[in-house]
Amino acid sequence: MTIDAALTEIFNLIGNRLTRSKSDLDLHGRSESHFPPSPPDAVAYPETTAEVAGIVSICARHGCPVVPWGVGTSLEGQAQAFQGGVTVDFTRMDKVLAVNAEDMDVVVQPGITREALNEELRATGLFFSVDPGANATIGGMAMTRASGTTAVRYGTMRDNVMGMEVVMADGQVIRTGTRARKSSAGYDLTALMVGSEGTLGLATELTLRLHGQPEAVSSAVCAFAAFDEAVDAVIETIQMGIPMARIEFVDAATARAFNIYAGANLPEVPHLMVEFHGSDRGAAEDAERFGEIANAHGATGFDWAVKPEDRTRLWRMRHNAAYACAALRPGARSLVTDICVPISRLAEAVNATRADIDASPLEGPILGHVGDGNFHAVILFDEASDAERTEALRLSGRMVDRALAMGGTATGEHGIGVGKLDYMAAEHGAAWGTMATLKRALDPLNILNPGKMVRLN
Amino acid sequence: MTIDAALTEIFNLIGNRLTRSKSDLDLHGRSESHFPPSPPDAVAYPETTAEVAGIVSICARHGCPVVPWGVGTSLEGQAQAFQGGVTVDFTRMDKVLAVNAEDMDVVVQPGITREALNEELRATGLFFSVDPGANATIGGMAMTRASGTTAVRYGTMRDNVMGMEVVMADGQVIRTGTRARKSSAGYDLTALMVGSEGTLGLATELTLRLHGQPEAVSSAVCAFAAFDEAVDAVIETIQMGIPMARIEFVDAATARAFNIYAGANLPEVPHLMVEFHGSDRGAAEDAERFGEIANAHGATGFDWAVKPEDRTRLWRMRHNAAYACAALRPGARSLVTDICVPISRLAEAVNATRADIDASPLEGPILGHVGDGNFHAVILFDEASDAERTEALRLSGRMVDRALAMGGTATGEHGIGVGKLDYMAAEHGAAWGTMATLKRALDPLNILNPGKMVRLN
Repeated sequence: MTIDAALTEIFNLIGNRLTRSKSDLDLHGRSESHFPPSPPDAVAYPETTAEVAGIVSICARHGCPVVPWGVGTSLEGQAQAFQGGVTVDFTRMDKVLAVNAEDMDVVVQPGITREALNEELRATGLFFSVDPGANATIGGMAMTRASGTTAVRYGTMRDNVMGMEVVMADGQVIRTGTRARKSSAGYDLTALMVGSEGTLGLATELTLRLHGQPEAVSSAVCAFAAFDEAVDAVIETIQMGIPMARIEFVDAATARAFNIYAGANLPEVPHLMVEFHGSDRGAAEDAERFGEIANAHGATGFDWAVKPEDRTRLWRMRHNAAYACAALRPGARSLVTDICVPISRLAEAVNATRADIDASPLEGPILGHVGDGNFHAVILFDEASDAERTEALRLSGRMVDRALAMGGTATGEHGIGVGKLDYMAAEHGAAWGTMATLKRALDPLNILNPGKMVRLN
Repeated sequence: MTIDAALTEIFNLIGNRLTRSKSDLDLHGRSESHFPPSPPDAVAYPETTAEVAGIVSICARHGCPVVPWGVGTSLEGQAQAFQGGVTVDFTRMDKVLAVNAEDMDVVVQPGITREALNEELRATGLFFSVDPGANATIGGMAMTRASGTTAVRYGTMRDNVMGMEVVMADGQVIRTGTRARKSSAGYDLTALMVGSEGTLGLATELTLRLHGQPEAVSSAVCAFAAFDEAVDAVIETIQMGIPMARIEFVDAATARAFNIYAGANLPEVPHLMVEFHGSDRGAAEDAERFGEIANAHGATGFDWAVKPEDRTRLWRMRHNAAYACAALRPGARSLVTDICVPISRLAEAVNATRADIDASPLEGPILGHVGDGNFHAVILFDEASDAERTEALRLSGRMVDRALAMGGTATGEHGIGVGKLDYMAAEHGAAWGTMATLKRALDPLNILNPGKMVRLN
């Protein structure tokens, strides 16, 4: 069998760092997504770029699928081996290779997690800004074009990956980008790779943009009677040019989940959670101006987190929101939806989603990154019930249809994998065919994470 | 002849908006670059996307080169028809199609210039930020991945183009991106097109990110005894997180050019020109903090432009710098070099460039976007002298070699065209081959702006 032949050669290359143990296969068959387990034929733990290139070369010769793996936090099945083959686990490639403090960049291997990276950066006064909540790997975040709570100020992975070393489908190693802050030299291969979910190449090194730790941070939570008012406050804040470091929305159901899961004491109405970064004076002024705008839109119960530990508690609560929501129905599986719309349509999109879910037998708290127009419903369903799974997918599908009709996108930050494949034609039209052309050109044998992102037949 | 056959069909499509008049051909054979004129066989003035698609379809059938044209301000020969064919002039596709003020975006045709766009936006309180100096078209700026003085704060065209309508090499029309602020849905075709210089497709519509006009603007110019001191001040300012809207460097020779051309009265030493945007309090605080940092690095002669007309004068002087420098040697041609390096190496790169030029018989004032690590030397040479042209190119080549050795790029914002083709292999290695693979996949007949960006044989 072709996969067996590939595994034999890979074993010759990396020895026991290729494993077929049941526990390893099971672990790499799962993810935090709602898809059924689908283990690979083997898991490889390379330690160097040369080993990754060797593995991919072998797989190319044998037509064996290659699936990249960070820590398995992707939500659309990106890291699952639906066609078998070799999962390449980057756990052992988790080093910081260079910190360039003056240039505010860092060079890392793909397997480092964002929390580990920020731990290593702590003494430099710099930080890596992208924060999707989960402690994902940098490689996985880049390949999913992840974003999260801070994107409104510091951008997504699109904005914060300056360059990459990539193993291509034939095993060739290329470098994209430079350490310069900008360039007009050729096609933007870095941007092409970011968000490509391992279907065009495997990242083996990444150069990331860093930001200075702010002198002052100011965080708060406040309540609104209706979501529309909250959105209007956010739009006005953005238009005034007040720089928000984070601006998060949670609905009444999520507030209830926080009360139960995190012992919060929030009124069960929509809330905004905000953060400002700047100088002592600047952050205070921004917070004050936001407060005035929010109050004019009916905000109540402003709770400013003055002490660092209060801020940590506030954002830990937000980061654990998916778990808090899931706990509303013990034993249920979550389908975490993810759409992004122009902000002028956000209130309408959220309200229509809320009405859909209220009319459904399923529960589904809503929360999101209101500054970007990106939000999620955490739809809770019984994994054993086909009817409930179908209903959860129907609710997600209605959200996507609505987002596309509003000029938005099927996914703000979770990506396509297999979970959003069915919406690609509707979102992109003929451009999805262009994506398939690129895939065929760069991976003619379709060995890199096959079945994700594009359809080739 | 194949080109003649194509022209006949295009004439049938758009009538007299296809022209072969000598004045039209001459105009479109030139650019602001230093390359000898190279006129196309004809110039087409389409008015709709369908006409552009029709023209490209005809050219695809006949193997006729298609060269896109905005206003001809590109500096590396991007818009010149070195292989003949049809130049597609977008002058008649210059409309604003939609202003979405709440979403802070705008949809435009490619032929609108940035100044015309900002004129149309004036009443909205919003502006389009990218400002390369020249009053280029938005289509040309996107395709060159232009940036300029405000990139340090608001980003380059990479950051400010949200989506495009593109006519592909077979005449198919695709749409890239959405009006959502972010997306993880598929390969980033928008980023692939931005900076592709018309070699992968022709932009017929662009959706752009807008920014709020700042409440307050604070500008200044100040002098330094040595460039190193100025760079150290800039690095410290960036690391402190003080948001600069512009931070421009001019050397002593440029200061002299300003004195002669613009009637300035600057000491003939290195200068920084800065601008801060924010609230009244915020911009003032930022300016004050910058002033303290600059003074600690030996800045003198701070001249704050308080009145709007003083600011206008200051930045008009900067925008006309290339003309001011050229006027130092009447009748000479300019070769405007363009490298970008990590900012930690900027002082070294500028000083080495200065020493190179001082040792050369040619004049070459240096200026640039110090916040990005991007700078230019305006090398003045006699077009009739092969020896001087060779010397100018040698100086430019040394700058590029040095930039690449420092982890930088051959071009920060002017692009590749034909002028920087010879450096692509050195900058990108095997990744340049990947670019050629993409070009072959998307333009298999090599009709779109052939001879630029990649080499196919």
